[in-house]
Amino acid sequence: MNIIDGKLMAARLKEEIAAEVAEMTARGERPPHLVAVIVGNDGGSEAYVANKEKNCLAVGIRSTNLRFDASISEEELLGEIARLNNDAEVDGIIIQLPLPRHIDAQKVTEALDWRKDVDGFHPVNVGRMAIGLPAFRPATPAGIMELLKRYDIPTKGKHAVVLGRSNIVGKPIATMLMQKAMPGDCTVTVCHSSTPDIKEQCRRADIIVAALGSPGFVTADMVKPGATVIDVGTTRVADPTRKSGWRLAGDVAFDEVKDLCEWITPVPGGVGPMTNCILMLNTLAARKGELPSATGNK
Amino acid sequence: MNIIDGKLMAARLKEEIAAEVAEMTARGERPPHLVAVIVGNDGGSEAYVANKEKNCLAVGIRSTNLRFDASISEEELLGEIARLNNDAEVDGIIIQLPLPRHIDAQKVTEALDWRKDVDGFHPVNVGRMAIGLPAFRPATPAGIMELLKRYDIPTKGKHAVVLGRSNIVGKPIATMLMQKAMPGDCTVTVCHSSTPDIKEQCRRADIIVAALGSPGFVTADMVKPGATVIDVGTTRVADPTRKSGWRLAGDVAFDEVKDLCEWITPVPGGVGPMTNCILMLNTLAARKGELPSATGNK
Repeated sequence: MNIIDGKLMAARLKEEIAAEVAEMTARGERPPHLVAVIVGNDGGSEAYVANKEKNCLAVGIRSTNLRFDASISEEELLGEIARLNNDAEVDGIIIQLPLPRHIDAQKVTEALDWRKDVDGFHPVNVGRMAIGLPAFRPATPAGIMELLKRYDIPTKGKHAVVLGRSNIVGKPIATMLMQKAMPGDCTVTVCHSSTPDIKEQCRRADIIVAALGSPGFVTADMVKPGATVIDVGTTRVADPTRKSGWRLAGDVAFDEVKDLCEWITPVPGGVGPMTNCILMLNTLAARKGELPSATGNK
Repeated sequence: MNIIDGKLMAARLKEEIAAEVAEMTARGERPPHLVAVIVGNDGGSEAYVANKEKNCLAVGIRSTNLRFDASISEEELLGEIARLNNDAEVDGIIIQLPLPRHIDAQKVTEALDWRKDVDGFHPVNVGRMAIGLPAFRPATPAGIMELLKRYDIPTKGKHAVVLGRSNIVGKPIATMLMQKAMPGDCTVTVCHSSTPDIKEQCRRADIIVAALGSPGFVTADMVKPGATVIDVGTTRVADPTRKSGWRLAGDVAFDEVKDLCEWITPVPGGVGPMTNCILMLNTLAARKGELPSATGNK
């Protein structure tokens, strides 16, 4: 059993980004600039935004939080997006979700200039990635690919089973894993709530990517010895032994699965720490006017 | 064994389209208008374009072929695309591929207004379809979905194995089959040139979609009794018994596989006849200012 240490890899990636930003500013160029658009108040968003800001600061990326009252109209918000699209000093824009109900989140996402869509949610980025063209890739699946790459985990010809078909994890990681690229070139099976034989599907996998949001779903009887198990689950479950009263639970029953695996990501400290890094990596690429390659990593 | 009769279904679909176009013109509205942009001369393109024109005529869709000399510059061609994008009397635009080498086909595709991209190749359409939003869907996979729907072939919870990961068939049909929709909601496995155990993968399939372009690839030992087999292959193979000297060969060894299947598409007369219909269906939707649903069929 080998642990895929997302925390360590994220720290290294941050060092690389920081070094590149430092070179940039040493040349007298302005640093990359990421703008988060936040509408109203949402506890989850606040924690995410604070973490993002801390990370940006640490690597020298300029971070701006644009806050609007929950009463802002869709039209006004679209106007703000247009302004950011045209602002040559803004490289990346993220829209904090959820948005208030009177605002069409999809419309707002599509209003972004896709060249500044560092979350990779704009249809142009989703489509370009599917086609195999350079594109901004969503943070979680791109983070997984980065881990596979940095640990040099073989993927070509391997059978990857993805649990979940969400637009932000399941579908894009399936697309990335099947591309003729390194990492990639996997036979890919996507399972979901309508899959009747999910245990059998998993048992055949060389690589399992669990993104169901169902704590402890992947048990020992579902894992082939020698498999690589990537756990994307981050569900808060009650834990009276913690001061906070809760802990993050992954989709994998780590303790019973780990000894079967060649490689496994823990929760926390696996995929999670990589996601913020990808956002920064995408912002850096946007600053340089480069789109990250959809099939490899830049 | 039941034959999925694509020719019959295409004829019905054409009747439906013709009826809707006739109602449209009876109301005094102009019929849908499809423009094909053709650069230079290519034998395959000419046959395709002639067939498209004949089909459009038959259902009352106006068809224009815009021909340019192979020497046209990329800039000039992009100018023509911009003109078509802005022409309120043009509903659908298709770019005949291949384009001459000095023209960047991807750039030309992306220059199309995605709302007129009835081939469904623009990244916005690819991305919207992946996300599950209404979008123009590429003809071949959309034609397959239409056949599954019209024959009421169960898909929910079935295991579909897709052979091939091309941008025009393999990847989009995988996306369509995994969506939570009817037809759809399949567990989907995508196999390709790097899949080591493609025979075993196929043997587990309830639905096989073969899109490799490899004549007779799917043999009897790869098909589970009761499976549905969709053959997308259309390779020209030499056939001295034909006047033309060739015949179209599918990816499935039809004669040895057919009796194992619950449903099977022949080649020719299966998926092929549907593709032109989808193009007309998309053009009709464009005329109505409606995007076909990405998850169902309109």
